[in-house]
Amino acid sequence: MQYLKAVLDGIYSDAINAKDKGIVASYIPELAHVDKNNFGIHLRTLDGFEYGVGNFNTLFSIQSISKVLALSKAMALIGESVWERVDVEPSGHPFNQLALLEIENGIPRNPLINSGAIVIADILLTHLKNPKEDFLQFVRDLANDASINFNLEVAESERNTGFKNYAAANLLKSFNNLVNPVDAVLDFYFHQCSIEMTCSQLSKTFFFLANKGACLKNVAHLKESQAKRINAIMLTCGFYDEAGEFAFEVGLPGKSGVGGGIVALLPDQYTIVTWSPGLNKKGNSLLGMQALEQFTTKTKLSIF
Amino acid sequence: MQYLKAVLDGIYSDAINAKDKGIVASYIPELAHVDKNNFGIHLRTLDGFEYGVGNFNTLFSIQSISKVLALSKAMALIGESVWERVDVEPSGHPFNQLALLEIENGIPRNPLINSGAIVIADILLTHLKNPKEDFLQFVRDLANDASINFNLEVAESERNTGFKNYAAANLLKSFNNLVNPVDAVLDFYFHQCSIEMTCSQLSKTFFFLANKGACLKNVAHLKESQAKRINAIMLTCGFYDEAGEFAFEVGLPGKSGVGGGIVALLPDQYTIVTWSPGLNKKGNSLLGMQALEQFTTKTKLSIF
Amino acid sequence: MQYLKAVLDGIYSDAINAKDKGIVASYIPELAHVDKNNFGIHLRTLDGFEYGVGNFNTLFSIQSISKVLALSKAMALIGESVWERVDVEPSGHPFNQLALLEIENGIPRNPLINSGAIVIADILLTHLKNPKEDFLQFVRDLANDASINFNLEVAESERNTGFKNYAAANLLKSFNNLVNPVDAVLDFYFHQCSIEMTCSQLSKTFFFLANKGACLKNVAHLKESQAKRINAIMLTCGFYDEAGEFAFEVGLPGKSGVGGGIVALLPDQYTIVTWSPGLNKKGNSLLGMQALEQFTTKTKLSIF
Amino acid sequence: MQYLKAVLDGIYSDAINAKDKGIVASYIPELAHVDKNNFGIHLRTLDGFEYGVGNFNTLFSIQSISKVLALSKAMALIGESVWERVDVEPSGHPFNQLALLEIENGIPRNPLINSGAIVIADILLTHLKNPKEDFLQFVRDLANDASINFNLEVAESERNTGFKNYAAANLLKSFNNLVNPVDAVLDFYFHQCSIEMTCSQLSKTFFFLANKGACLKNVAHLKESQAKRINAIMLTCGFYDEAGEFAFEVGLPGKSGVGGGIVALLPDQYTIVTWSPGLNKKGNSLLGMQALEQFTTKTKLSIF
Repeated sequence: MQYLKAVLDGIYSDAINAKDKGIVASYIPELAHVDKNNFGIHLRTLDGFEYGVGNFNTLFSIQSISKVLALSKAMALIGESVWERVDVEPSGHPFNQLALLEIENGIPRNPLINSGAIVIADILLTHLKNPKEDFLQFVRDLANDASINFNLEVAESERNTGFKNYAAANLLKSFNNLVNPVDAVLDFYFHQCSIEMTCSQLSKTFFFLANKGACLKNVAHLKESQAKRINAIMLTCGFYDEAGEFAFEVGLPGKSGVGGGIVALLPDQYTIVTWSPGLNKKGNSLLGMQALEQFTTKTKLSIF
Repeated sequence: MQYLKAVLDGIYSDAINAKDKGIVASYIPELAHVDKNNFGIHLRTLDGFEYGVGNFNTLFSIQSISKVLALSKAMALIGESVWERVDVEPSGHPFNQLALLEIENGIPRNPLINSGAIVIADILLTHLKNPKEDFLQFVRDLANDASINFNLEVAESERNTGFKNYAAANLLKSFNNLVNPVDAVLDFYFHQCSIEMTCSQLSKTFFFLANKGACLKNVAHLKESQAKRINAIMLTCGFYDEAGEFAFEVGLPGKSGVGGGIVALLPDQYTIVTWSPGLNKKGNSLLGMQALEQFTTKTKLSIF
Repeated sequence: MQYLKAVLDGIYSDAINAKDKGIVASYIPELAHVDKNNFGIHLRTLDGFEYGVGNFNTLFSIQSISKVLALSKAMALIGESVWERVDVEPSGHPFNQLALLEIENGIPRNPLINSGAIVIADILLTHLKNPKEDFLQFVRDLANDASINFNLEVAESERNTGFKNYAAANLLKSFNNLVNPVDAVLDFYFHQCSIEMTCSQLSKTFFFLANKGACLKNVAHLKESQAKRINAIMLTCGFYDEAGEFAFEVGLPGKSGVGGGIVALLPDQYTIVTWSPGLNKKGNSLLGMQALEQFTTKTKLSIF
Repeated sequence: MQYLKAVLDGIYSDAINAKDKGIVASYIPELAHVDKNNFGIHLRTLDGFEYGVGNFNTLFSIQSISKVLALSKAMALIGESVWERVDVEPSGHPFNQLALLEIENGIPRNPLINSGAIVIADILLTHLKNPKEDFLQFVRDLANDASINFNLEVAESERNTGFKNYAAANLLKSFNNLVNPVDAVLDFYFHQCSIEMTCSQLSKTFFFLANKGACLKNVAHLKESQAKRINAIMLTCGFYDEAGEFAFEVGLPGKSGVGGGIVALLPDQYTIVTWSPGLNKKGNSLLGMQALEQFTTKTKLSIF
């Protein structure tokens, strides 16, 4: 354990001294104003060890990381039926997301790209009684932490600038792959993405995916086979057009968000979360990617 | 002139006896309920001759034909500045319209595909005082006919089902190529497309493009060079993925609409309009295409 | 006629004084070494007038201009059957020529892009007894000039560097849209493109397309309807991704070549040829495009 | 171990009784004539256990499975320099492989699609003294089996029909991403793909990738980190447009071949090979995919 602490300390030290810290997302003011010198990392193992360094207790916007949680809830609700409306293949080139949607008749390539996550949001909207409240409660239950919340300013800003998401949702609707009205689906989606957590909270929240579907309090939220499949999707689709790179360099299932967070996990062993707001050219946290690559290289704790 | 009448009579006779009359557009009830046995054709020459056969005095929804009129008004208002926001190239494969928009950074390939026409609608919304009223007045002036009007049921139906147009407009907005709000632009656009005319009214309305920019009452609505350029765009872009086919088979600048209308013209000589609601696989009026091909083959009155 | 001479003299004067003369093609030494200060223009009317300025009697590599001649010969040989193997639609975005070929199952979009021209070459290889000799004779007959010839160094250089053409030909072969061996087809194709002519010779050669299919000596090489259709294809497909621009700015059927030549024509009236080796970003002669735009703007002699 | 035997026996029993056995590849006679009732499976664990059922000792054409071995040899020879010429991202939609190559300037998406494997072949051609002999020796060394060989009829048939590979190689050449002549590279590539092995031989050959780079005789052919990275690439890119599906259903790094073979492995634990010549719609062995899904579902021995 001392060794793991030393590895994390070393990663932190490299990160705060890094010259290139990437570029903070600027499309909404709430993200643009975050200081890119923040860096947090938190490791939580299944046998009870945990250790955080840096800003691991600072709240940040989890953004696309929420897609994994929404997918988990959708699978818990309707099981394999999810796959009638969304595929499980990597998305390839990033510029042609809408193109692929057109070619493939409105079936998104996977649930972790925006169009796929919008379909998942539509499913949740149909199957949850009070969609936003119930989803938030699901996340709080996973983390065993009632303080987790939406950031309503972020949700509102996304709503005002999310034209590409409106484009995707309308395209899905034109292919009859959206049941609820576009505005209702995106209202839910923007709230889901606005959830704020700390590295420490996220490593708790994602514990169930490393633990065969059961959360820290040992409540089974998913079947073991479902947890495995979500891990598989994270590995092949969790990092946009850099999914192969992440599998190649890091070798863990994971998911990044434009707020600078990355969650990753080794089944049966640990969850790990990094937060560094500066992004690389492909939209993933620059120092977070490097930190995780260092972690699995040094510890040899990857799936491969 | 007797010869022209005989040609048109022959075309009409062939059309009403055709076995395959295509498939009527069914995405909104107002179009779906049109009887596909309607067939009208109307010819109007610059030297004053006119002749119509069949249902040439029946109102139909001009739909995309309106894009040429909107483009004309935009050029009258802001001239060459139009081309800062939309290109003049054919669009190629139909399935990837949104893809092309993504690749080309939100600059539509031409003003006669939907995304391009939405940009033109945005221009009109900015530059007209009472956009819908003023545009309708422009069309009435071209046709010298105050009875021309929107069909508000059609506009409303389009608004309720036009998800692909909402997708395109939001994508344009995401690239900063839409100044006004999406809903306002599409409200204008759906009204523009809902205008109803007869073959006879349309042949009057498009007279100015065959006549160096001046309408039947000899009012100059466009410069001669502008009229020529719009004709060039109709020739290369007027028939979606069948523009080459139309140039090849018919050899006239023209524009089709999903309501089954086609307008075509030979500069300095004539305008001709057909209406037959059944469409071919590429979305153009099946019998209208055939009628115009027969007309230019028999009369040899084409641009080539 | 004095007026036409004055227009051409003015165009020439502007061209030789132009600051930006474009960039000469450099992929083979034979083209790279051509002086970009060359500028020739030659006009030939159907009523017997002709006038040339500048280097209108200098030989240059006609390159893709030859595609129109090959298409003409193929239509003369097998008529409408040509269209079973190649379409007549504009090609849209230039970077995805092979992509379109894949999507559309090996049917090139039109006979004036490379893949389409390779299919036409395959047709000629099948139907001509001595393909290269017979095709050359066809061109000499059109021009009434036995001095026209291949440039064998150019053909050889193309063969050694034409990897994209080999890629296209093999892709066509994989879709069973090439009957003869790839090497044989491309050998013919590279020879065809290597033909050298002057502006004056080209304006004679293309006379038949302005003259209902009959050459200067009044021999009918194509039916009138065939000549019209080739003109239609030139208008919609003659300038790669700038076909719309050329129709819009110039308003004539035409074809450019990477050697810097452009042929254009007004049916029943004239052929006009420019040569200026510097190309614009889209691969068409920069000053040639400008010259033709000036010509039709000033004379108002366009099809629109 | 009895349990594993029972699982494999059960899989075999299901496979031979399956009604839908897929469709055997028919593009060359050598593959077309293989009986689709063949089914073999072979498991080999790192602790020395092995067990095969059915036709696990019958030779078949390994085809694309060879790409992993070629990549391994290339990494052994030039290390990370490989990644200057080929990326590590999944390829997305299968129809646009050449399109992607055009868009991405001749850098193949990954070394397990054809264009990427051709680049790897080019590297081996440059760095091996006797390319075909040396590569075969490498494979024999991995398997500790000198009987492994090329099938020269298969290589010849591929050469005569592999037009898409010639298209890809020429396109690579046009982007300067092929050093050696197209014909030489493809000659090597077709030989590499023609290697024949049994399930049992393949499970020996791929042992080194489950064993940190060291083969059965404990010779290190790759560094541990290199073996991990190849496993990561197999997971994200090993099954064309079904890579996500395989990760999702099976959860192992693996590679399929058009001859009906599939190799998969769990690092530190085992290699497993199936052979069933009938393919599904995406070109992967139908029963092989099902067999492996059953295996990891029942044994829970996957990476997730």
